[in-house]
Amino acid sequence: MILVLKNNCGAEEIGLVKGKAEELNLQAEIINGGSRTLLLLRGGDYSFDAREFLTLPCVERVVQLDRGAGLVSRETTPQPTVIRIDELSIGGGDVVVIAGPCAVESPEQTLAIAEVVRKGGAKIFRAGAFKPRTSPYSFQGLGEQGLKILADVRSETGLKIVTEAMDEASLGLVEKYADIIQIGSRNMQNYSLLQVAGRTGKPILLKRGMAATIDEWLMAAEYILNEGQDQVILCERGVRTFSDHSRFTLDLGAVPAVKELSHLPVIVDPSHGTGYRGRVPAMARAAIAAGADGLMIEVHNHPDEALSDGVQSLDPVGFTNLMHELRRLAEALEIRI
Amino acid sequence: MILVLKNNCGAEEIGLVKGKAEELNLQAEIINGGSRTLLLLRGGDYSFDAREFLTLPCVERVVQLDRGAGLVSRETTPQPTVIRIDELSIGGGDVVVIAGPCAVESPEQTLAIAEVVRKGGAKIFRAGAFKPRTSPYSFQGLGEQGLKILADVRSETGLKIVTEAMDEASLGLVEKYADIIQIGSRNMQNYSLLQVAGRTGKPILLKRGMAATIDEWLMAAEYILNEGQDQVILCERGVRTFSDHSRFTLDLGAVPAVKELSHLPVIVDPSHGTGYRGRVPAMARAAIAAGADGLMIEVHNHPDEALSDGVQSLDPVGFTNLMHELRRLAEALEIRI
Amino acid sequence: MILVLKNNCGAEEIGLVKGKAEELNLQAEIINGGSRTLLLLRGGDYSFDAREFLTLPCVERVVQLDRGAGLVSRETTPQPTVIRIDELSIGGGDVVVIAGPCAVESPEQTLAIAEVVRKGGAKIFRAGAFKPRTSPYSFQGLGEQGLKILADVRSETGLKIVTEAMDEASLGLVEKYADIIQIGSRNMQNYSLLQVAGRTGKPILLKRGMAATIDEWLMAAEYILNEGQDQVILCERGVRTFSDHSRFTLDLGAVPAVKELSHLPVIVDPSHGTGYRGRVPAMARAAIAAGADGLMIEVHNHPDEALSDGVQSLDPVGFTNLMHELRRLAEALEIRI
Amino acid sequence: MILVLKNNCGAEEIGLVKGKAEELNLQAEIINGGSRTLLLLRGGDYSFDAREFLTLPCVERVVQLDRGAGLVSRETTPQPTVIRIDELSIGGGDVVVIAGPCAVESPEQTLAIAEVVRKGGAKIFRAGAFKPRTSPYSFQGLGEQGLKILADVRSETGLKIVTEAMDEASLGLVEKYADIIQIGSRNMQNYSLLQVAGRTGKPILLKRGMAATIDEWLMAAEYILNEGQDQVILCERGVRTFSDHSRFTLDLGAVPAVKELSHLPVIVDPSHGTGYRGRVPAMARAAIAAGADGLMIEVHNHPDEALSDGVQSLDPVGFTNLMHELRRLAEALEIRI
Repeated sequence: MILVLKNNCGAEEIGLVKGKAEELNLQAEIINGGSRTLLLLRGGDYSFDAREFLTLPCVERVVQLDRGAGLVSRETTPQPTVIRIDELSIGGGDVVVIAGPCAVESPEQTLAIAEVVRKGGAKIFRAGAFKPRTSPYSFQGLGEQGLKILADVRSETGLKIVTEAMDEASLGLVEKYADIIQIGSRNMQNYSLLQVAGRTGKPILLKRGMAATIDEWLMAAEYILNEGQDQVILCERGVRTFSDHSRFTLDLGAVPAVKELSHLPVIVDPSHGTGYRGRVPAMARAAIAAGADGLMIEVHNHPDEALSDGVQSLDPVGFTNLMHELRRLAEALEIRI
Repeated sequence: MILVLKNNCGAEEIGLVKGKAEELNLQAEIINGGSRTLLLLRGGDYSFDAREFLTLPCVERVVQLDRGAGLVSRETTPQPTVIRIDELSIGGGDVVVIAGPCAVESPEQTLAIAEVVRKGGAKIFRAGAFKPRTSPYSFQGLGEQGLKILADVRSETGLKIVTEAMDEASLGLVEKYADIIQIGSRNMQNYSLLQVAGRTGKPILLKRGMAATIDEWLMAAEYILNEGQDQVILCERGVRTFSDHSRFTLDLGAVPAVKELSHLPVIVDPSHGTGYRGRVPAMARAAIAAGADGLMIEVHNHPDEALSDGVQSLDPVGFTNLMHELRRLAEALEIRI
Repeated sequence: MILVLKNNCGAEEIGLVKGKAEELNLQAEIINGGSRTLLLLRGGDYSFDAREFLTLPCVERVVQLDRGAGLVSRETTPQPTVIRIDELSIGGGDVVVIAGPCAVESPEQTLAIAEVVRKGGAKIFRAGAFKPRTSPYSFQGLGEQGLKILADVRSETGLKIVTEAMDEASLGLVEKYADIIQIGSRNMQNYSLLQVAGRTGKPILLKRGMAATIDEWLMAAEYILNEGQDQVILCERGVRTFSDHSRFTLDLGAVPAVKELSHLPVIVDPSHGTGYRGRVPAMARAAIAAGADGLMIEVHNHPDEALSDGVQSLDPVGFTNLMHELRRLAEALEIRI
Repeated sequence: MILVLKNNCGAEEIGLVKGKAEELNLQAEIINGGSRTLLLLRGGDYSFDAREFLTLPCVERVVQLDRGAGLVSRETTPQPTVIRIDELSIGGGDVVVIAGPCAVESPEQTLAIAEVVRKGGAKIFRAGAFKPRTSPYSFQGLGEQGLKILADVRSETGLKIVTEAMDEASLGLVEKYADIIQIGSRNMQNYSLLQVAGRTGKPILLKRGMAATIDEWLMAAEYILNEGQDQVILCERGVRTFSDHSRFTLDLGAVPAVKELSHLPVIVDPSHGTGYRGRVPAMARAAIAAGADGLMIEVHNHPDEALSDGVQSLDPVGFTNLMHELRRLAEALEIRI
């Protein structure tokens, strides 16, 4: 770490900084930086917040030399993490498609959609039994009854199941019925939930928060890895910006950025990322071309009757056509889908 | 609600829209809107998501005529809500100052700061016992031991206590020891936590999420009111934008905006909103001048030794000077502080 | 247009609104909207700002029923605009690659890079002779001397030339030497420059402003079309957001969004959109997969010696490899590149 | 400047970096930074873009030790700049109020409003003769005829005049008639216009761009100062964010931030910053309390008939009441208005 000191610092003020460094078991060395005097600090661990040095009257700026290389970092684990569920693998170079409706609505609807996405080539089925909704008066999901329907879908189709847990109670249930536990955007910094999720034996799909930087997203994953669960899939799903043509701004540049920094697989949700089904195929193709390890796509057999998010759901024909396009694309990119 | 139809819709397609309206118990009337045909929908409740009409092939846009006027709305409750805790009132026109350190660190530190803020004129003490931190390796708070220290501070100083609950377990404890339960920005859309908070008997201080619109913030409060707890204080604390001169962009325009829409009191946290103690006085004065019902300010007796957020904490002299300024300002604005 | 009136408007207040409508030659009709009274306005042109009705005490909200369908709109011109420069066409379904260095630095550098990009398959050469730089002390371009070098490049390679005009003076020169005139992001709302550009006989490449909505971007193009020049190419190059992993946030969702609204071709600049050469290939592939009509890519023969933006420039090998990938991708997408 | 090197850089790669430093007349010294090797560079001027070192394969990050301290910097000029126009001064601790309509519409309207604002206590009159409008079909201002009306207003009221120049042609005219030349947000990075403005003898009011960081805003001012004109007034007028309750997000935290970095006066435009007249008083008061050197406020005698921006204009009574409030506030803050 380097501290850039203010011009005209006195010896006493510099002494305060050195004292604080000493308390933290850091070695301090004064360096003539030309336009500024610098204090180079070496050693110590990173359990303190480097920003705290800014409280000293003499310190103008703190420059951290590394990002503290946590368990999520590619510096710690250079090889990409591959998540295996039976014969299925996520993150090993191929592309996995997760598809299904926003919410479990009924056994018939759920199974019908599951058959569509299985035939289309999806390997994992998504559908919410617990739905975090902006308004308390909106449909909140079927709860455990929904999870049982999902378990039946797995038995009948062989598809793996991912579904969202919203709190400790629903997490216990989701762990029991699903193959992958989803933590949604609104809970990305619900650290208590992340810790409990990290103590389950199931892989975690962690959606990016609407205003999360990549560092914050990776640190949220770090909470899970730190509990012993290293099977984490990151999911970019759009961020909040001024740009009002879509529901969120899908930040596809996050895909190569995450791959530089972390060994974890990263997938993309073009349904939430655009908010309009007509734009989902374009952004699904773009995500694959950008190097995403998978897609999460909303599909409904009757989008116009969906209880939530129908407007961003593909219908069966739309999904089948998209999968056809994606397979051609994957071939050109020399990956499998 | 008005549906703007696409040009060249056929009778059959319009029939589909009318059918969906009927299912939702809405009356539909076709209107010639000049450049567009419109379908006016009347009646029904607002438990459905109006966006769902967009799934129909014929519907170009949905225009909601009102915001659905929930319990938080000024349309429902025209008079401002005043929250009373013993002799203290929040939201009745006067300004309440909440102050204290970021975190409870020790009994001595906490009591020393409490004395400073009490003498300065603060009526409520803030300090975290449970700290949501970006990194799992940062100081996470003293837990229940911290809450006990806060209870002692109340006994010794008479200050009311507000402190953050991060999950259901800590909420049970915070409810036991504190006067006001804080829900932090990262949990603003942790709806399960909001519901549990709404079932306590204690007032709730609800911080705005970093990327929350005002509608989303008010709907988060609606989750609490819907559980029977109508004592909610909103707190603006800065939002995420491209503007990188401060830690967050303090959106002071939210103060008059919230007051137009809701009867709930709204306070401002200039410490998180700027991230630098040197700018806290300017933004604290600005918040009061903008009509905020209160302030939440970080104060530390030794900011350079604080375990977290020292860089945005005022020291005792800084806080005392600020309170002096604020009292002069309040006089000019004909309010009490 | 629909005006949503406030509750409890008196007849006199509604009379004021009708009076204003009359002045603007609009027909007004009162409609019972259920929870709100509405005033439907038909007819009139759209040279007034609909927001102005908000000045009347009785008007709560203004809902415009169409976007006013300008010359840029797909409603006005359903067929995609194809821009033809000799045998080259942009917007007709195939993908055009524009490549070259950030700035013209010398005849040798410029020609060497031009040979590289021509061999790689680019059809248009880009390089700035006039450079808008954040600091007045940065390299500002070679001016007319640079334009002459570009004209030589065209003679020697057959590549078409696109280069930026910053003001009326440079626009006169650029028009003389280049095949396409670029208007940069910082000048997207320099309406005087857009009008002058619209009166040249040359196609215009209009980059999106860093904080421009799609409506504003299209209205900027409207300024050009309104002067008689309908050969406009839109270029998405990243917008300003909180997301700090890249220089800008490349908003690829703008590609399908623009194609829904406008007949103009839209290309993507992944070099500015990411700011790091290592991420350019991923986002170039993604742009093509999302349906962009072309790419604008920075290439330098010695990126580490470039006078500007070397860090986001591909080197010759990188560019050649990318073109190879893009050709495979184009084949899978059944388009030509 | 410090270059943070990648782990495992070879001697040859480090040699490349040293070579580039030498070319730029910088002295290079290798430093053991603990977790990273550093290269400290001293000397040289700042006409190169430090980011260019990132093009070298061995360089991970560039840390600039100072901001290059331009003419706008408080490091260069510690004393606040005071702009004097006859007996009027801006930036010397007192608060100046600029008020008037969005646009000059007619001699009668303009003079009537001028009388209102003069009586209210404004010292400078604002009104646009050249209007940059999003749509080419909106009212674009009266041009030179409008400027003549403004000159008459000055003769009759004694108010100083500020009005916007949009391009070189209008700047020549504005210079002739006005006391202060305004450069609008859309032209903040129209560097050619800034340079021409810097060569006039008139003070320049430079509005912040909608997506400009403070560094970019100050560098835009630097373009003006670099031409010899050091009389620049900065104006915060709201930035683009996701927050949709107001037209723009007024970034009042920019006021103390600019004052830390620069000696130039900074004023605030709460009319554009909120977009709704009902919120203008709150944010005007807040701006003064935050330490702004002045306000720019839209006032119209008949806001409901204004040709533009009536919805954010105060009427005469509203303005007079606000000035009364501001004077009380100024007294409490021990400044004059």
